[in-house]
Amino acid sequence: MISFRSDYSQGAHPRVLEALVKTNPEHTDGYGMDAHCEHAAQMIKELIGDENCHVHMMVGGTPCNVTFIAAALRPYESVVSARSGHVYFHETGAVEATGHRVIALEGEDGKLTPDMIDKAFDEYQDEHTPLPRLAYVSQPTETGTIYSKAEMTALREKCDRRDMLLYVDGARLGSALTAKGNDLSLKELAALCDAFYIGGTKNGALLGETLIIRNDKLNDHFRWMIKRQCGLLAKGRLIGVQFEALFEGGEDCVYFQAARHANEMADILRNGLKELGVRFFGSSPTNQVFPILPAKVVKELEKDFFFYEWAKEPDGMTAIRLVTGWGTKEEEVLAFLSAVRGYLGRP
Amino acid sequence: MISFRSDYSQGAHPRVLEALVKTNPEHTDGYGMDAHCEHAAQMIKELIGDENCHVHMMVGGTPCNVTFIAAALRPYESVVSARSGHVYFHETGAVEATGHRVIALEGEDGKLTPDMIDKAFDEYQDEHTPLPRLAYVSQPTETGTIYSKAEMTALREKCDRRDMLLYVDGARLGSALTAKGNDLSLKELAALCDAFYIGGTKNGALLGETLIIRNDKLNDHFRWMIKRQCGLLAKGRLIGVQFEALFEGGEDCVYFQAARHANEMADILRNGLKELGVRFFGSSPTNQVFPILPAKVVKELEKDFFFYEWAKEPDGMTAIRLVTGWGTKEEEVLAFLSAVRGYLGRP
Amino acid sequence: MISFRSDYSQGAHPRVLEALVKTNPEHTDGYGMDAHCEHAAQMIKELIGDENCHVHMMVGGTPCNVTFIAAALRPYESVVSARSGHVYFHETGAVEATGHRVIALEGEDGKLTPDMIDKAFDEYQDEHTPLPRLAYVSQPTETGTIYSKAEMTALREKCDRRDMLLYVDGARLGSALTAKGNDLSLKELAALCDAFYIGGTKNGALLGETLIIRNDKLNDHFRWMIKRQCGLLAKGRLIGVQFEALFEGGEDCVYFQAARHANEMADILRNGLKELGVRFFGSSPTNQVFPILPAKVVKELEKDFFFYEWAKEPDGMTAIRLVTGWGTKEEEVLAFLSAVRGYLGRP
Amino acid sequence: MISFRSDYSQGAHPRVLEALVKTNPEHTDGYGMDAHCEHAAQMIKELIGDENCHVHMMVGGTPCNVTFIAAALRPYESVVSARSGHVYFHETGAVEATGHRVIALEGEDGKLTPDMIDKAFDEYQDEHTPLPRLAYVSQPTETGTIYSKAEMTALREKCDRRDMLLYVDGARLGSALTAKGNDLSLKELAALCDAFYIGGTKNGALLGETLIIRNDKLNDHFRWMIKRQCGLLAKGRLIGVQFEALFEGGEDCVYFQAARHANEMADILRNGLKELGVRFFGSSPTNQVFPILPAKVVKELEKDFFFYEWAKEPDGMTAIRLVTGWGTKEEEVLAFLSAVRGYLGRP
Repeated sequence: MISFRSDYSQGAHPRVLEALVKTNPEHTDGYGMDAHCEHAAQMIKELIGDENCHVHMMVGGTPCNVTFIAAALRPYESVVSARSGHVYFHETGAVEATGHRVIALEGEDGKLTPDMIDKAFDEYQDEHTPLPRLAYVSQPTETGTIYSKAEMTALREKCDRRDMLLYVDGARLGSALTAKGNDLSLKELAALCDAFYIGGTKNGALLGETLIIRNDKLNDHFRWMIKRQCGLLAKGRLIGVQFEALFEGGEDCVYFQAARHANEMADILRNGLKELGVRFFGSSPTNQVFPILPAKVVKELEKDFFFYEWAKEPDGMTAIRLVTGWGTKEEEVLAFLSAVRGYLGRP
Repeated sequence: MISFRSDYSQGAHPRVLEALVKTNPEHTDGYGMDAHCEHAAQMIKELIGDENCHVHMMVGGTPCNVTFIAAALRPYESVVSARSGHVYFHETGAVEATGHRVIALEGEDGKLTPDMIDKAFDEYQDEHTPLPRLAYVSQPTETGTIYSKAEMTALREKCDRRDMLLYVDGARLGSALTAKGNDLSLKELAALCDAFYIGGTKNGALLGETLIIRNDKLNDHFRWMIKRQCGLLAKGRLIGVQFEALFEGGEDCVYFQAARHANEMADILRNGLKELGVRFFGSSPTNQVFPILPAKVVKELEKDFFFYEWAKEPDGMTAIRLVTGWGTKEEEVLAFLSAVRGYLGRP
Repeated sequence: MISFRSDYSQGAHPRVLEALVKTNPEHTDGYGMDAHCEHAAQMIKELIGDENCHVHMMVGGTPCNVTFIAAALRPYESVVSARSGHVYFHETGAVEATGHRVIALEGEDGKLTPDMIDKAFDEYQDEHTPLPRLAYVSQPTETGTIYSKAEMTALREKCDRRDMLLYVDGARLGSALTAKGNDLSLKELAALCDAFYIGGTKNGALLGETLIIRNDKLNDHFRWMIKRQCGLLAKGRLIGVQFEALFEGGEDCVYFQAARHANEMADILRNGLKELGVRFFGSSPTNQVFPILPAKVVKELEKDFFFYEWAKEPDGMTAIRLVTGWGTKEEEVLAFLSAVRGYLGRP
Repeated sequence: MISFRSDYSQGAHPRVLEALVKTNPEHTDGYGMDAHCEHAAQMIKELIGDENCHVHMMVGGTPCNVTFIAAALRPYESVVSARSGHVYFHETGAVEATGHRVIALEGEDGKLTPDMIDKAFDEYQDEHTPLPRLAYVSQPTETGTIYSKAEMTALREKCDRRDMLLYVDGARLGSALTAKGNDLSLKELAALCDAFYIGGTKNGALLGETLIIRNDKLNDHFRWMIKRQCGLLAKGRLIGVQFEALFEGGEDCVYFQAARHANEMADILRNGLKELGVRFFGSSPTNQVFPILPAKVVKELEKDFFFYEWAKEPDGMTAIRLVTGWGTKEEEVLAFLSAVRGYLGRP
């Protein structure tokens, strides 16, 4: 079986694993207070060009989202998100578990727009309604689309006018940054938001993400919040070591290499399917590909390939999700294209 | 100034006030464990024809909604409501403050439908999403419309199939029960839902509502929940005494008299405005009337009458909300109609 | 039966009730935005000599405590209280329900001391422990004792050194202010704390307390917090009207009259019992009296008087709690003393 | 520098690391739904002799404690713990963050006793107090002491009489099970409690613990709870793979080998220090050793060894904490003993 199920179906990138093996015997301080975490944080500060930001080694994406939101908002404040946003759609109400509403709004392509923020304020009136205070976006979105520099800048401006924070979920940030057509650099993204995280789990780490908080006030007692939200790892260096390995080498580091590779594999899939006349659900340029195929073909493909069915489409068609990762091989991609070609009866 | 601002702008119905004055010197047990609360609960059990239900004297509507939801749901479970529902639209995220999402869905006339419940389940898939567990409806809705017996029965059936609880917010229940066209009796309503409350504040009480929980399991340790949610009144008899006064006399009690009066005053408003050719926002048959008037007329009316502007409408029109209550006088209603007639330039 | 069960076993002081009756027909704005609430707030600002404080009409004592704590603390911060403090001992974990620990420490006479605050900090070390941030005290305490000016000043100084807030629960504040031996005036108390409430329920109101917040930052969006915590009353004027009636007349207002009367009745009880050789549990100078009597005498007294058994004492003795209120009559007090004299076989 | 700082200062046991390396290229399902997690769970069921229990791969100890407590308790219920218990003393109020009080009681040797449970119920009376519902104990305790079979059985009996759950935090369970003098086997422990966890982080894993829930009702929708509490790892197999490696081989598996080794190293420390006339803080027979040394000696030792100062003792003495782990070498232990001997001026 060949797997396009997810970018977290394999373990760590070999170079990351090597670093874990190499540092394994070391004795370090616990809870992320070690030299590896310190070094990884320093590398990230340099990458984003902000010496004054705060970098936290986090155990996962939901912990990043929820801990930052719980720390940044006062109890009566709420989050604004596209209905397909991860905090609304895939975290079992973990934000609400900390007492905050997620105002979910219908949007196109999984994106939040300045108009949608205005719409949230239409619902908001006075002390009888929870004040919208944080705009949540993912780069890329759940369906693989990316915000342009202009779109993200417009969100920043709207947030400024509405006295809102802008938070970016970067679970697959590597894929967005290295995608064809992307015009928003890491430094620019960092400069536009109040906080964001760089996802490791879906781009070469065993687990772990780095949360970047861009001002002192939002960072106040943040480690207390991590502990309270059950996210402080005893062997915290486990994440620091991995991010050191991921970002060693600057622009040519494993992190960007892995993301570029995944995107390339996705592009081969996309282009090959296009050549076969296949249409797509959405317009992802990142490592998620959503071809729409006849349901019968999908059933056949499932015998040899792992992937998720994404949505039922009209006329007996099914949209499926194919995800590539650091470990996806070109031969696996070609095997998939070949199988589709066969099932569709193309020459 | 004549007020159509709300049904909670005056104090208590005179008969309710008399009861408070009369019982004032009595010494009773605190926290709702007195004979008045016991007696009021017994009257309500008889009215709804259910000796085995549990009746709690509550300090307000939001406390009823939130305390019941917090008691009935496990942490990962969520509430389904129309987007205009009070728990979503007017309680500052008080349900989310207890850790539960309110899934808000667009609906017509402020109503929740079985199809909307299905739609909530479309969002729900597995352990990554909060399980819909309680359907929240108001009778009447925020915009004064009422569920028919058929509609409420269909909701009950859908809830049964989905293993959901059905909860009815009865802040203005008196008005619904006595509205023209209503075909859903109090007993029938009670039999269809798992819990509901009978609103006192908006129908003759100084404050207070009675929450009715229809099975033992949902009622387990409910007084602990009331206290934990800050809703246990030291002088709990204050609510019991009022509900005794409201329900004394069965079908002809103050509660229904007051509601009928408010509805009659609303009907005169509605019919008078219709005769003047005025259109309405929504189709409320209860004590809220939503005429759509030229914005200029609205400005003139505001000089002599209190009411809320409800929504901007096309072509320079504004929908306003007029609310009648136990204390609304026919002469006040006629004065309003006369003023409108004048401003509209009708004979 | 004569009742010494509690100071909330009767309704409102007659002058308070009169005010409710008199204002009943008025139409006012809802949710505490009316002229009565405004006026009552103004009276309180003058009484405490602070024009810049913020006054909120609250529905009860637990809502005051919990709403202020939830508003003032960041999520990882905690409350320090004597183990007998109301927030720890009698609110079903309502503070914890908002996510904050109450650090409960053993203390004498129900009081918190600067040393106990230091002890809380001994438990507190770093990000693995919740930061003590608010000192909770009651004036008077649960067992009726009062803080002297020196004691309260010492707490204030300790709080300043520890960067903590000082909050005073004034459920029975009237009784403390008018107690024999009290040397801490309302103005002084107000000046020493960050927030406190003046209890109405236990001193002449049907329900309601006024929460005073002494700086703008702690008051930020406080009405949002009241609503979110389910404490915003639709007919908010109900509390404003009562506090107008309670504080009309300055130093000689109903509030102080009622408290003085209750204290006088308690003093007669105390002195009468002392003359009979009875010892007391604790040293309350306020409207709670805790005589220690033979268990057999207690059983006899329970035939004609309502009161609570407080604690089992050695040698077959029982401490009971007698509470006096605005409505306690001297003849009731004398009847009790006479009964004790009889059962003890004194001449 | 030689480190006795903690049993989580090094990475994983070499055999655990090998397993991670070996399985790294595999594609598996995410979120703990893979064959490794399934296999590890099966091994644990066999070890504890209970085919019907439920085993969850958890990311850390605090997530185990908090997620189980939040799932098992209704909102008004509370936890009873020794004041030194981890849920009270070292988790930044994470239990309270889910709305539940931890009733902290002073106890000897860090242990909870049946009498302390009774004391918690003395505080508990009725709906004004949060109902004690779960007894929290650690095996071993925070200070390394262990519960005997008789002590744990007495707790179980008390819990049964009080309708309470018994939960065991096994962060260092391996060390307790293999300690000299331990008479409580893993199977017996499992049979006595409602849920417990087997700690991996402090006994050879990079991270991760396995939570065992012993009945279906307490396990209901538990994966929803893990996700909501931010503890569901995308690459969940990471924990499954490690526990497979830890428990491969039954009684002689890496898990017990590693724990036995750590205990042996601790015993050499303990015995060597005893021979030098050193006294100890508490009576830990596990992998934590708490010698009491002159403060001056401690300062000298800190030049060559990492460890924590634990408590100031009288007469210029300081208790320190030495922790051994799977990677502690006998030569490191001997070097420490030799240094102490030298600083104490012993021959």
